Amino acid sequence: MARLSGKALVAQGGGPTAVINQSLVGAVVESRKFSEVTHVYGARHGVRGIVDEDFLDLTEATTQNLETLAVTPSSGLSSTRDKPDVDYCKEIFKVCQAHDVRFFFYIGGNDSADTCRIVQEESAKAGYDMRVAHIPKTIDNDLMVTDHCPGFGSAAKFVAQAFAGANLDNRALPGVYIAIVMGRHAGFLTASSCLARTYPDDGPHLIYVPERPITKEQFVQDVKGVYEKYGRCVVAASEGIVDPDGNAIASQFTGGEKDAHGNVQLSGTGALGDLLSSWVKNETNIKRVRADTFGYVQRSFLGCVSEVDQVEAREVGEKAAHFTVAHNRDASVAIRRIGDYAVEYFPAELKDVARVSTDMASHYLNDAGNDVTQAFVEYVRPLAGALPPATRISAPKVAKILKK
Amino acid sequence: MARLSGKALVAQGGGPTAVINQSLVGAVVESRKFSEVTHVYGARHGVRGIVDEDFLDLTEATTQNLETLAVTPSSGLSSTRDKPDVDYCKEIFKVCQAHDVRFFFYIGGNDSADTCRIVQEESAKAGYDMRVAHIPKTIDNDLMVTDHCPGFGSAAKFVAQAFAGANLDNRALPGVYIAIVMGRHAGFLTASSCLARTYPDDGPHLIYVPERPITKEQFVQDVKGVYEKYGRCVVAASEGIVDPDGNAIASQFTGGEKDAHGNVQLSGTGALGDLLSSWVKNETNIKRVRADTFGYVQRSFLGCVSEVDQVEAREVGEKAAHFTVAHNRDASVAIRRIGDYAVEYFPAELKDVARVSTDMASHYLNDAGNDVTQAFVEYVRPLAGALPPATRISAPKVAKILKK
Repeated sequence: MARLSGKALVAQGGGPTAVINQSLVGAVVESRKFSEVTHVYGARHGVRGIVDEDFLDLTEATTQNLETLAVTPSSGLSSTRDKPDVDYCKEIFKVCQAHDVRFFFYIGGNDSADTCRIVQEESAKAGYDMRVAHIPKTIDNDLMVTDHCPGFGSAAKFVAQAFAGANLDNRALPGVYIAIVMGRHAGFLTASSCLARTYPDDGPHLIYVPERPITKEQFVQDVKGVYEKYGRCVVAASEGIVDPDGNAIASQFTGGEKDAHGNVQLSGTGALGDLLSSWVKNETNIKRVRADTFGYVQRSFLGCVSEVDQVEAREVGEKAAHFTVAHNRDASVAIRRIGDYAVEYFPAELKDVARVSTDMASHYLNDAGNDVTQAFVEYVRPLAGALPPATRISAPKVAKILKK
Repeated sequence: MARLSGKALVAQGGGPTAVINQSLVGAVVESRKFSEVTHVYGARHGVRGIVDEDFLDLTEATTQNLETLAVTPSSGLSSTRDKPDVDYCKEIFKVCQAHDVRFFFYIGGNDSADTCRIVQEESAKAGYDMRVAHIPKTIDNDLMVTDHCPGFGSAAKFVAQAFAGANLDNRALPGVYIAIVMGRHAGFLTASSCLARTYPDDGPHLIYVPERPITKEQFVQDVKGVYEKYGRCVVAASEGIVDPDGNAIASQFTGGEKDAHGNVQLSGTGALGDLLSSWVKNETNIKRVRADTFGYVQRSFLGCVSEVDQVEAREVGEKAAHFTVAHNRDASVAIRRIGDYAVEYFPAELKDVARVSTDMASHYLNDAGNDVTQAFVEYVRPLAGALPPATRISAPKVAKILKK
């Protein structure tokens, strides 16, 4: 059977990550090696750029330009928050057909996987031979099937390094420090703050994720308990933490602004951190209480990348080319952990990754709902990779003379 | 003349920086080389630890431990917000005398320099021969005499990398992005966001510092102007920005909490960012407006250090030992820029650095009060050092087929 031949089209959707351009460049450079691929197009601003036919001919991007782009964070082709319905996907398909696109790669989360699924169905209905690959990407780490998602490891490293620094800062000038981490439904990224711990009394001392509802009373009691023990307390909390009724604690502050996916805005505001801070200030005698919200910097900071994440993001892009061009199949590229630490890549079914998402398994969270387990530490450590040292002075105490 | 001989004592004050331990280790390791220095003590929690005689004998800290500490951010000896008055300084002096401390090094800002000055005066009054050195440290970069302050370069690098990433993120998903940067009176750190720019239309597009008062009207007009030009806008604003009456715009949100220095709390809250965000939301039709507050992460993030800053922080610590032990003089160690880029160190008078502070010179700020000048870019670039690449795809556009 003659191999399918025609153009490849790649686009990036959703929120940027530190390594999303590795996936882009992996898909582009690997596709360009196949003689069946006549041109590689890049759509600007995700699916929006496809329906607008806003394409760049990446066959004429220099390899040097692409390799420098690969180590640049955020979506080099730009992104979109559009979430295509069936009619939108029909438009995408029509454009693909008009341009003789035979290989379509979409880098994104579960919504992007769903777009891939529908576009593939539309092409099949029309009898137009076309392979579609979803290339996984999300700092939330909430995709089904795959062991973990490219983009997550680098964001986890940022969060770990931020908390390691915050812990040292809090140790130097004691008080309560609360930082809000991205994560609407899944707590993986917030939970990664556990990697900041080196010494037994290092923070974060408390970790709250959306998977475990919290009450004001329990939160304040937890903080007081840690403060009484260590004279200080560092807290990591997801932006999506909920009360026992399942309502996002942040939702009351955002004026109800919603995105195209119907989600309330959680990021880009310091309100949740300030609320948690006020709980501690109002209910305890602790004087110094500070709250930070890491915000967008955790997903696009220039110069904080996990080596493992970078390599894997590249390879899922490359594998998308292999699965579609060489193996003539549709796929969501997935990662399987096969060692400590090694992975292999495999093609998952688009329908198994589309729309649905996952969150943290129970055995990754402690019973009190305020910390992770050792199992999670072992899961996440290789993904974020090695952190810079964070050591303490080790020297004998001097005997007092005046205040004996 | 016989050289002065006795113990050296070192302490760290004020807010931590990424390289403050380089200065500590520089002072300790260099002091240990002089036979006149019988022991090197480290006071925990700054001046508070001195009056409490809470000392570690750093003569018995391993060099390996100290070298690892040197590359660890935040104050390894811990810090304090205590601002000693004359009576407090008398207590410090008494403890120094009791422990035969003949060389006192205090790492900190202008308040720390003032403590050095008073302690030195008390020792002179008592006829106790003692040398005192202030080792400069502040991310605010607001000390007199010195060209710049250790700690600033690394914080500037963090801010530049954060804005470079935020700019890429904002380009991928356009809207208005505002980030609040530390800086109560001096805008140096916020101004350093200018280093995030690579392409002519890169953000931050607007930079607001405390040296230039702003009005809501002008701010909104500036943002609208940029948004109309580029379809997006990235804004850097200092936490200490003021209105035309000189009142901190953030001050109305903080409930009046003040520190020991009488300063209103500006950091550790997202309120200012949210206020600027609401100005744009309420006065324009721009839909996507987001605000981040970088918070404590900008001064203690693990793993973001300027190489130049690291070297200079080390050397000001070493020079403190030279000036006091070898040259038998008191000093605030200062940096003079002698090339592009090279520096030399010299002893400034403690009284010239104590208490007073400086802010950005007029020629570093543009007339409209919403950006820096090229002179500032040239001043700050060598201090932050090279940044990772932030490139764009360069490829030809593809002709449309359906929407010709």
